[in-house]
Amino acid sequence: MDRQQRIVNQLKAEGLDALLIVSPTGTTYLSGCYLLTQIVIPEREAYVLITASGEASYLVCNLEAHSAERASRIADIHQYVEFAEEPAHAAARLLRQKGLTNGKIGMEASKMTYAGLAHLQRELPLARFVDWEAQFGAALMFKEPAEVEALTMAGQATRAAIENGMRQASPGSSELEVSNRILSGIMAAGIMPLFNVFASGPQIMETHAVATNRTLRPGDIVRIDMGGRLSRNNYLSDMARTAVVGEATAEQRSIYRRLSTTQTAVFEAIRPGIPISDLYHICVDTYAREGLPFQMPHIGHGMGIGLHEAPMINGKNDTLLAEGMVLNIEPFVKLPERQETYHIEDLAVVTADGCRLLTTPHPDLISIPA
Amino acid sequence: MDRQQRIVNQLKAEGLDALLIVSPTGTTYLSGCYLLTQIVIPEREAYVLITASGEASYLVCNLEAHSAERASRIADIHQYVEFAEEPAHAAARLLRQKGLTNGKIGMEASKMTYAGLAHLQRELPLARFVDWEAQFGAALMFKEPAEVEALTMAGQATRAAIENGMRQASPGSSELEVSNRILSGIMAAGIMPLFNVFASGPQIMETHAVATNRTLRPGDIVRIDMGGRLSRNNYLSDMARTAVVGEATAEQRSIYRRLSTTQTAVFEAIRPGIPISDLYHICVDTYAREGLPFQMPHIGHGMGIGLHEAPMINGKNDTLLAEGMVLNIEPFVKLPERQETYHIEDLAVVTADGCRLLTTPHPDLISIPA
Repeated sequence: MDRQQRIVNQLKAEGLDALLIVSPTGTTYLSGCYLLTQIVIPEREAYVLITASGEASYLVCNLEAHSAERASRIADIHQYVEFAEEPAHAAARLLRQKGLTNGKIGMEASKMTYAGLAHLQRELPLARFVDWEAQFGAALMFKEPAEVEALTMAGQATRAAIENGMRQASPGSSELEVSNRILSGIMAAGIMPLFNVFASGPQIMETHAVATNRTLRPGDIVRIDMGGRLSRNNYLSDMARTAVVGEATAEQRSIYRRLSTTQTAVFEAIRPGIPISDLYHICVDTYAREGLPFQMPHIGHGMGIGLHEAPMINGKNDTLLAEGMVLNIEPFVKLPERQETYHIEDLAVVTADGCRLLTTPHPDLISIPA
Repeated sequence: MDRQQRIVNQLKAEGLDALLIVSPTGTTYLSGCYLLTQIVIPEREAYVLITASGEASYLVCNLEAHSAERASRIADIHQYVEFAEEPAHAAARLLRQKGLTNGKIGMEASKMTYAGLAHLQRELPLARFVDWEAQFGAALMFKEPAEVEALTMAGQATRAAIENGMRQASPGSSELEVSNRILSGIMAAGIMPLFNVFASGPQIMETHAVATNRTLRPGDIVRIDMGGRLSRNNYLSDMARTAVVGEATAEQRSIYRRLSTTQTAVFEAIRPGIPISDLYHICVDTYAREGLPFQMPHIGHGMGIGLHEAPMINGKNDTLLAEGMVLNIEPFVKLPERQETYHIEDLAVVTADGCRLLTTPHPDLISIPA
């Protein structure tokens, strides 16, 4: 049964008449069409409407109609003209057209804008809008084999670009040179970079620093966390690696190996049926055993077309692990007294009896040759 | 007087007690700190609060606290821990702490999420939240000389990367090769690409196509619309260019020149005191005179840290042009009968008696040598 059919069944089971999705990730999952402008021009909203009778409609700005007609698997495409009509007004028009004037309509409460929902409520005073964001997120957790394949391809290409780019660096390279070489490697694989964390020296304690003109020096710890979107099918990569410029000290090697042990412990614990929060607590315990300070609100996350998808792996999430979930496991440790941060991140899919790694973890601190 | 002081004066004049900003663009303008995660992990909200008494506070996820402490010009930094506390709960805490329990608080109605504002209203039932998005947008329209300089630098570097990348292409180059070479040129200038439209062949009618493995062929029209963010200070570029593979036909040259004439007509009309909508209508008239079909809901837009900032240049905007506004003027024309799209985009700042171009328009269709 496909994802849309499962959503339709659940809408019916819960007594909803329809689901109205506005998040870029959600509309891309349902339509198969990624509209860059949903991210860079958020005002230019797109909506997908799924009714409990199984009808799907796609509402886009007329500027994007050609892309929608070309890429969308939803045939019923509606348009609005920017500045002539509010996107929410067009969404209300679509809801009326589908007989949902009095409907109970699921939506994403933390993706819908306040103005957008207020507009819908004003135009459709008899409709009831209910938050269905968690249910929708849960429906996206299970990835099809083709999705796992795309995530593997994106992840391994990003890993190779990061590791190769670091090995080609040397003391005297600027952060920007190294970062750009890695990003070019990512792009050469048909992946458009989405984020580009590169930290060394005075920025090493920052979670999301980007490369500067600073030159690398022997002894520097370099932390990279990068990812992007496969242009051909919209799936993401997200990968963290840590390197040292020149020879690592015994202490640096030890910190890295202990961090790597925490990641391995989590991968080894993954199997269907256990609560997500168990993974978090296993990670906490392994940090304690390895003598590393634990500082993370989450230790990993689901991923697909969205960067942080359900399940978020934190201490409160009691969702049960299940086959087909894809998880990034990303332990990091910030050591203010050493002015060093270590971070690794790899991807796995939950299988019938454990997990399968989709990217290849790096066993040792990467060395940037001096 | 600085931007924040002008906002404070206007809050007082309009009887507001504070302004609560959540948009990534808005918080970056006010704090000087760009948090990549506000874009890629939208759930990880950051807020800036400005009170009518002139106090400013910055609320960020604790993971971003190091970056905030390093880059923010707002000294009063507050934190929340992700998954332990909802960002909106932390915002309510901040509002209470600043004595705003009964306050009249401006906010951005189409940037605040429905769930976020509902949370604030529930926790602060005596506070009144009013939409101040348009006023805030208007306060950001006027750019300081240093901002104009950053936009010029970003724009010219992006222009050079696009034009050079196109001239280095040839028939047989793949879209992806050419697109990636251009993006590498943009990155070499310290600009992180934000969007990467590249269209030729069957994708030429799409507004936001991205490069594929298709190879360029003689006679192809190639449309590029790319931009990114200067890493060192967060200002954007946004530039469109059109090329032909091999020799242009007389008709192709003529279409491009007529399109270029419409852009020139708009630049020549810019001067303080005239309504923005005049520019739109001048553009419409010039299209008619040049025999080109007019299809645009807007012909350009303000830009700074955000991609589409006020003023949007459409037929309804009666804001008066004023010195210091920065405008992208981007006429395009889609010709379905020829399966060709032409698009150009350049940036100007409004001066005391006209405008000054910040990027150098391209007078002729760019030729990709055969």
